[in-house]
Amino acid sequence: MAKNLTTRAEDYSKWYNELVVKADLAENSGVRGCMVIKPYGYAIWEKIQAQLDKMFKETGHENAYFPLFVPKSLFEAEEKNAEGFAKECAVVTHYRLKTDPDDSTKLVVDPDAKLEEELIVRPTSEAIIWNTYKGWIQSYRDLPILINQWANVVRWEMRTRLFLRTAEFLWQEGHTAHSTRSEAIQESELMLKVYAEFAEKFMAMPVIQGIKTESERFAGAVETYCIEALMQDGKALQAGTSHFLGQNFAKAFDVKFATKEGKKEHVWATSWGVSTRLMGALIMTHSDDNGLVLPPHLAPYQVVIVPIYKGQEQLDLISEKAFEIKSELENLGVSVKFDNRDTHKPGWKFNEYELKGVPLRIAIGPRDLANNTIELARRDTLEKSIVNLDDLAEAIPKTLKDIQENLFNRAADHRTKNTNKADTWEEFKEIINGDGGFVEAHWDGSAETEEKIKQETKATIRCIPLDAIEEAGVCVYSGNPSNKRVIFAKAY
Amino acid sequence: MAKNLTTRAEDYSKWYNELVVKADLAENSGVRGCMVIKPYGYAIWEKIQAQLDKMFKETGHENAYFPLFVPKSLFEAEEKNAEGFAKECAVVTHYRLKTDPDDSTKLVVDPDAKLEEELIVRPTSEAIIWNTYKGWIQSYRDLPILINQWANVVRWEMRTRLFLRTAEFLWQEGHTAHSTRSEAIQESELMLKVYAEFAEKFMAMPVIQGIKTESERFAGAVETYCIEALMQDGKALQAGTSHFLGQNFAKAFDVKFATKEGKKEHVWATSWGVSTRLMGALIMTHSDDNGLVLPPHLAPYQVVIVPIYKGQEQLDLISEKAFEIKSELENLGVSVKFDNRDTHKPGWKFNEYELKGVPLRIAIGPRDLANNTIELARRDTLEKSIVNLDDLAEAIPKTLKDIQENLFNRAADHRTKNTNKADTWEEFKEIINGDGGFVEAHWDGSAETEEKIKQETKATIRCIPLDAIEEAGVCVYSGNPSNKRVIFAKAY
Repeated sequence: MAKNLTTRAEDYSKWYNELVVKADLAENSGVRGCMVIKPYGYAIWEKIQAQLDKMFKETGHENAYFPLFVPKSLFEAEEKNAEGFAKECAVVTHYRLKTDPDDSTKLVVDPDAKLEEELIVRPTSEAIIWNTYKGWIQSYRDLPILINQWANVVRWEMRTRLFLRTAEFLWQEGHTAHSTRSEAIQESELMLKVYAEFAEKFMAMPVIQGIKTESERFAGAVETYCIEALMQDGKALQAGTSHFLGQNFAKAFDVKFATKEGKKEHVWATSWGVSTRLMGALIMTHSDDNGLVLPPHLAPYQVVIVPIYKGQEQLDLISEKAFEIKSELENLGVSVKFDNRDTHKPGWKFNEYELKGVPLRIAIGPRDLANNTIELARRDTLEKSIVNLDDLAEAIPKTLKDIQENLFNRAADHRTKNTNKADTWEEFKEIINGDGGFVEAHWDGSAETEEKIKQETKATIRCIPLDAIEEAGVCVYSGNPSNKRVIFAKAY
Repeated sequence: MAKNLTTRAEDYSKWYNELVVKADLAENSGVRGCMVIKPYGYAIWEKIQAQLDKMFKETGHENAYFPLFVPKSLFEAEEKNAEGFAKECAVVTHYRLKTDPDDSTKLVVDPDAKLEEELIVRPTSEAIIWNTYKGWIQSYRDLPILINQWANVVRWEMRTRLFLRTAEFLWQEGHTAHSTRSEAIQESELMLKVYAEFAEKFMAMPVIQGIKTESERFAGAVETYCIEALMQDGKALQAGTSHFLGQNFAKAFDVKFATKEGKKEHVWATSWGVSTRLMGALIMTHSDDNGLVLPPHLAPYQVVIVPIYKGQEQLDLISEKAFEIKSELENLGVSVKFDNRDTHKPGWKFNEYELKGVPLRIAIGPRDLANNTIELARRDTLEKSIVNLDDLAEAIPKTLKDIQENLFNRAADHRTKNTNKADTWEEFKEIINGDGGFVEAHWDGSAETEEKIKQETKATIRCIPLDAIEEAGVCVYSGNPSNKRVIFAKAY
């Protein structure tokens, strides 16, 4: 049953890397830092996409598509944004290859096809989008613009890990334009709420909502809101960000609108995004030493039926029943796979679906047929039970709901157990260098202190929680006064 | 009512370019040859995607995602494919920018960040995918692999037009691997049928299914199947292709499998794709001098309700009724927009939705309220009728079905009228240089004749129809014997 999977206790990082590959989610490609998302992994991403897309549309957003490339002159227009991404971007300099004069089977870059202006493969699309919005916005009547884009982006990361940090990744990026500062702030807060709701209800992953300190802010933002989750190894993972961009991009691209009163003002902006990084968060939040554990809301199939049989005759009888069950469950909105392959033994299949995190497994053998029962196994608790077929229509949806809740509660418990207050520098270091987790501590608000803490412990301020309680205290590092605790952790 | 749209008779090409922009479908971006797909255009693309995706899954395919970049050494592995795309590809040579030493507000490519091996932005993904499949395929048990990818690709076209030919475009590309030649051929033919069904049933666009001549084949394919449609101006448009790739890519990437008998054999391949080019085909097939005409199956909303009122009191009464109608129709699966904006007059709205091709428009005024009626206008015929509210639940779905059929029939009629047989070179030239359209003519099967015909008339062989009738004849150009007619046309 061990599936040759390194255990979490042995080496959490190795466990993760192995699991992603063994559960058929993704693998490294022949291109440095870029991944191949395999069908099973992509099916989870499709579920994530479908649900988020629904939530974006319900909150008034529409999808559109903007170019992959950003000309260098546009890229550099918003200085902080450009500075933030310049060091890790893929640059297109030529538009043609030609046959290698020294070897006719090879190609070389054609020096005659050099671009006059280099193109940057988008690391994020504010620049190209605000250059476009300039043409769309004349008056207050043109606002708000509420647009989302599903796209690939490229950031030339030096150290990459499947889903968590890859040179190319898939994401959605919302880019909105507003006539007032407060409306833009409301939008960034609304989208933070959407992300938090998605994380908790669908990924079964509890998150802290907060704002980033200046040093952790998105390059070009006035305020960065974020959701932060705690992984099983005590490290934090930033799962989504929503930025209030002020008028920075409107100024960089000269985007003004005529107010109702006829004045010309710069437009207010937000942007917000989540990426295939969520796949990493999902995997690390719930999975165990037997493999992946998926919340029912995001599982490619929620139930797998495995027949236990000897010979074709038994398989035929069991298949008949299995197809009945499948169709009964599908009518209830449950997704079901019936694995009737004759090339693999039941034990192999049990292993496989455990590794792949299918929430519920139904096994049917000849004795079950005789008794009008099935064996039901939960992936989250590994519990097995015998269920009468007449009770299945009630039991399956109920158990799926149970699993979804149990996963959330388990993750919330883990977070509670691994969230600690630190009031002295000794305490702080002890926790961070020990089991890690979230540390609630007072901070004096200076970037200098933040940087020193990072240098000495590798812990960063994950966020200043939106619901932080006003409380007089002293900075855990400098001893200077502070009025609320912030969340520290080592992070992915 | 003219909306300042150039008429088709005046200048078909200008009409198209204007329509795409005025109907809010797409626009040119700040990046040479790359388009911005606007929300209304993207909503149509989403409908296309959703339906195709469903059809792909129903035929056993799964989605996955492969890298955007192809290292040069992989790109050049399949020689014909490489040769076919080398002249029009975007090449990434560097992975970092740095501050311009001469101007601290500018960025320049950092010469120290030159890639050891250049990366090609995928113009198509056979190379990167077959390099991946190599790791996935050991035995016949691993076959078939039936994968599709939704992605962006880049081909550095010199002359671009919105949707029809852009440097970056969106598409889907299926890439399948099989253990036998015949299974791979069956797959390419199956996907051609899927494309044809989609074009005819959903786009209401009749297509000819056929195979390409050698000179028009996809670079690296053994056989290219295609669907060809006829636009209103008498030019053909290739709307989708499905390639039987033989063992070309398996050989180039050394992908072998162990047969049941234990022999090692190269794998058989197909690939197939349609792109945002379909948007161009859709627009040009149905639209008229008043603007876009959309088939109900692909319209972002099928019905728009426009209130005709004076003052808030009338609007309130009409709105109440409009929301009732909206909800009644939505329960029937009809998508409805109620435009109750007070910032635009009804006449403006009528124009706008005509321009945007909304299949049905409902207008409601105070007299309608009194009479329990609405005014219904069909976009395809521009006919108006008064419908009793009690009949709406029957009338709307029926009329939508009617419109869908009428659009197909109209396009089919146009094609029939513009498909002609040519038996002499004079006839051939007269038709091609006249109204154009499809010309059915005998061809001697030689690339030389094909090329000469192209040079003299700009007409190309669109395809050899799958249902071509065996018939003795002589080549319209060379006089050499031929056994079936092929389809010639000028093409997009």
